[in-house]
Amino acid sequence: MAYRAGVEQRISLVTLGVADVERAKRFYQALGWRGREAEGTVFLSAGAVTVVLWGGEKLADDAGLPAGDSGFGGIALAQNVRSREEVDAVLADAVHAGATVTQPARETFYGGYAGYFTDLDGHAWEIAYNPGFTLGPDGSIAIPEHFGTEI
Amino acid sequence: MAYRAGVEQRISLVTLGVADVERAKRFYQALGWRGREAEGTVFLSAGAVTVVLWGGEKLADDAGLPAGDSGFGGIALAQNVRSREEVDAVLADAVHAGATVTQPARETFYGGYAGYFTDLDGHAWEIAYNPGFTLGPDGSIAIPEHFGTEI
Repeated sequence: MAYRAGVEQRISLVTLGVADVERAKRFYQALGWRGREAEGTVFLSAGAVTVVLWGGEKLADDAGLPAGDSGFGGIALAQNVRSREEVDAVLADAVHAGATVTQPARETFYGGYAGYFTDLDGHAWEIAYNPGFTLGPDGSIAIPEHFGTEI
Repeated sequence: MAYRAGVEQRISLVTLGVADVERAKRFYQALGWRGREAEGTVFLSAGAVTVVLWGGEKLADDAGLPAGDSGFGGIALAQNVRSREEVDAVLADAVHAGATVTQPARETFYGGYAGYFTDLDGHAWEIAYNPGFTLGPDGSIAIPEHFGTEI
């Protein structure tokens, strides 16, 4: 799909930085939530949004932000997009709106391409292209059935 | 609809605590986002989730958490439910799973009923019954067309 001007009004993921992924996973499992886990990362589909549990230090490092910084409480919102070009274009649009790029777009370990910006209050947004996750017409991502292990 | 055991696996709202709602609103408008505003609160429907811009101090006070505390970076996730009884039941389930109630459920200024818990890493969740917002079968909320003003 061709990139449309502007930043689409949607969220794909909410990533919660946690001290201990296993402990956090057990908590959300105790709430009755189920999902999939891969490489120490837990994905819990919550309607059209996916809640991700990931190590807080890894998340901060990924976002180019100091762990424990009061402006970054260990939550990052993410918008997945359809191409590397769209990542660059959305980041440029955000900067034009006044955002600060904290992590310039770069190739990721999972074969994708992503960068981060913070809004005027320091809230972190990742803009990501992940060829492994299908993006639905509503912007929701689909975690493949054979991705990682079921939890 | 009757309450089902367990905490449903979904998010209704992501509330971003901000220093200046007008400034934050202009930023998201500059991204191309549109929504509705009422009583100093901005609602931006982002697919099945609604992004809310609200004063950070008000949010912290509402959540029973210290503003600027490093464990609370000014973001609260919310799950809207269908009744006051369901708010109480979900909070009880969360406590059973190890959560800490930071704001016991109480009547709200908008005629609803809500409380907050934090997960094991201090991430804040509000469980809310808001009779003014229709809850869809997928758990998404609908901001009424005549609610507040269009932005």
